[in-house]
Amino acid sequence: MDIGIGLFGLGTVGSGVVKILQENMDQITKRTGSRLTVKHAVVHNLNKPRHGFTQDFPITDNASDILDNDDIQIVVEVMGTLDQAYDIIKRALNAKKHVVTANKDLIASHGQELVAIAEANGVDLFFEAAVAGGIPILRTLASSFTADEISRVAGIINGTSNFILTQMAINNLSYAEALKLAQDKGFAESDPTNDVEGFDAAFKLIILSNFAFGIQPVLGDLTINGIANLTDTDIADANSFGYAVKLLGVAQRVGDTKEAISIEVAPHLVPFTHPLATVNNENNAVLVNGESVGEVMLYGPGAGEMPTANSVLSDLTNVATDLALNTPGRPFNSFNQDLNLAKPSQRVARRFIVVEVDDTPGAMYSVTGMFAAAKISFTDLKQTPAANGTARLVALTHPASDAQLNVIRTTIRNADGINLAAEYKIFS
Amino acid sequence: MDIGIGLFGLGTVGSGVVKILQENMDQITKRTGSRLTVKHAVVHNLNKPRHGFTQDFPITDNASDILDNDDIQIVVEVMGTLDQAYDIIKRALNAKKHVVTANKDLIASHGQELVAIAEANGVDLFFEAAVAGGIPILRTLASSFTADEISRVAGIINGTSNFILTQMAINNLSYAEALKLAQDKGFAESDPTNDVEGFDAAFKLIILSNFAFGIQPVLGDLTINGIANLTDTDIADANSFGYAVKLLGVAQRVGDTKEAISIEVAPHLVPFTHPLATVNNENNAVLVNGESVGEVMLYGPGAGEMPTANSVLSDLTNVATDLALNTPGRPFNSFNQDLNLAKPSQRVARRFIVVEVDDTPGAMYSVTGMFAAAKISFTDLKQTPAANGTARLVALTHPASDAQLNVIRTTIRNADGINLAAEYKIFS
Repeated sequence: MDIGIGLFGLGTVGSGVVKILQENMDQITKRTGSRLTVKHAVVHNLNKPRHGFTQDFPITDNASDILDNDDIQIVVEVMGTLDQAYDIIKRALNAKKHVVTANKDLIASHGQELVAIAEANGVDLFFEAAVAGGIPILRTLASSFTADEISRVAGIINGTSNFILTQMAINNLSYAEALKLAQDKGFAESDPTNDVEGFDAAFKLIILSNFAFGIQPVLGDLTINGIANLTDTDIADANSFGYAVKLLGVAQRVGDTKEAISIEVAPHLVPFTHPLATVNNENNAVLVNGESVGEVMLYGPGAGEMPTANSVLSDLTNVATDLALNTPGRPFNSFNQDLNLAKPSQRVARRFIVVEVDDTPGAMYSVTGMFAAAKISFTDLKQTPAANGTARLVALTHPASDAQLNVIRTTIRNADGINLAAEYKIFS
Repeated sequence: MDIGIGLFGLGTVGSGVVKILQENMDQITKRTGSRLTVKHAVVHNLNKPRHGFTQDFPITDNASDILDNDDIQIVVEVMGTLDQAYDIIKRALNAKKHVVTANKDLIASHGQELVAIAEANGVDLFFEAAVAGGIPILRTLASSFTADEISRVAGIINGTSNFILTQMAINNLSYAEALKLAQDKGFAESDPTNDVEGFDAAFKLIILSNFAFGIQPVLGDLTINGIANLTDTDIADANSFGYAVKLLGVAQRVGDTKEAISIEVAPHLVPFTHPLATVNNENNAVLVNGESVGEVMLYGPGAGEMPTANSVLSDLTNVATDLALNTPGRPFNSFNQDLNLAKPSQRVARRFIVVEVDDTPGAMYSVTGMFAAAKISFTDLKQTPAANGTARLVALTHPASDAQLNVIRTTIRNADGINLAAEYKIFS
């Protein structure tokens, strides 16, 4: 069977898709039984030079050239913009074309609506490349853990921030220096907000939560904290206690009967002995905890031209299989259930807490009193002199809830001569 | 739809399968649209007590009770014996029943034949649980890397030997002590040959090679070395150079144009910075290198009741989907190609070599002369006094082929006062 592909976007990922299709044509045809060919590409800027593949298809800037083209059965959207992608994908699905996209923002924001449109039109909508680049986590969740009850999905799902944290830890760079290095290497954009403030990870975590738990969270359901306030001293202190600091997206069932769901993006302390702690630089990893399977981790490149393109290709070959078997139109993830969002009192974890306090007699007594009042007790404690005559108190705590931490935050905010410099959950 | 399951074997994995089916019945029905129920189990020993699940199905010791039962559409074979399993699976497939098995020896030895019988009868034959326990590596290879050209698949795929090596490295146990601990913990059998001599890993590597490269190797195509000759001194020396010692199964394309395939089970030195080095104790991991995707690793429990049962369940839910869509009968892996086996001269790697030599003047001169004659040069060298007036020379080499190593082996075997104590490839 001949299958025509229309490509929206010929940037990094788009070029990679064309390259793989051209270089591995024989193997793909042999394995899927179908010949997948790019018939047309639509781009923003027609004058941009394009390399690395044979251009044997027309390139224009008019969406209708793909959407009205009867030779095209699958639309690949790798433009990376939100509004236009939304319109284009909607039009493509309604024109009964299968869609493969790498657009995490779009799927996280409008996934439910687009999935319904695809189903109504009997076409496939796949987006493996939207989460964790080359790591095939979505299809694995949808096809290999279907019978298991997943208790947690947690991941290093933003390569930029992981690169920055790795450089801070290994090469003792400051946050600003590590960010600059990431920008020089092309891992971070000139405006890094989306990556370092945790929004990129949040979009991916929304999609992971949908696949792992069948829920449909919106951005407002998440607690999101980025890495911009982390200092190299925080990281060094965490290291000294045996922990790496990683920006994790964590969605997990909590509560006495695991009845609620907590969805959070934040820096976490990860024990050096845990597999997630060894995921360095721009790499990604997703950890899945299932009641039956236990702990499974998928590790790999979180971004990059060819790994991301490979995930697009895995979607394309799955559409090809569906076409050959005449079975398209099933949702990528068919799991649906409702779970309540966790209350702060249900979000319990050990903590890493840094308090700066004026170095005066009785100061430490007053600080420890505040924690005692909030019923938060310590497992490890370290005091060092800090700048300007203050003392730096680093504490690891026994499990404490977000509700208890809110008490401490308020108490400290209302007190003089004490500042809560850092507070992170310990992952276990 | 109601789907009846017949279970051959109610040991560890079989009980786990029943437990998950019973405990997660609602979720499975919701996600697959089918109600999967065990209708009958056939066991060897009817008198064995069985716990952990509600026995709401008959248990007999007569295979025909399942094979001739029209209420049963899927046969699950988790008996763990080879000959009987072969007959039963063949009869089941010919009776047009779908088969799910965890039997790696069987699939590695008779997979090609059984796959053909399944296809001829239009039924599914799945065996995710046969490789790496709870890690969903086979379905991932079959559905997510279809468009990529895989250059290497490498894994820690025998939990018993990995447990032994981990205990030797971390707790400084001797091989015998570590083996005893593994036996006490139930990770090793009283006769550990299959695990420690590398045969279990070899069977799994045969299946992985089939999925990654589309080839059909037989046991005789593999180079197999186990861990029984490894000493704690070897491991300590490897550690001192920055390497962990792991029993790896490695199948990779080699040769100038990557035209040949090398398939080997052997202890390897793995750099501490590589993700495989952090896989400890009974855990497994499989690393996949693809031309496009780069390096991806799947990590998880390599054995155990519930993880392995979860892989059986993932096969069952995939059969259920095929039944609902009316698409059964496609082979689990549809990739087929021929590749020549690598020649010794094509199997090139850096090496860790230990030579014991009589501590006499000129001895080291003579040893280094042997390596020079074989054109093997060193990157690192360490000499320490060994027992009985001998010197222990530990060397890391530049890349050298198996052919060159064969020269050295022969030279040393024919020389007096020198012994090749250990020789392992360095994984990179």
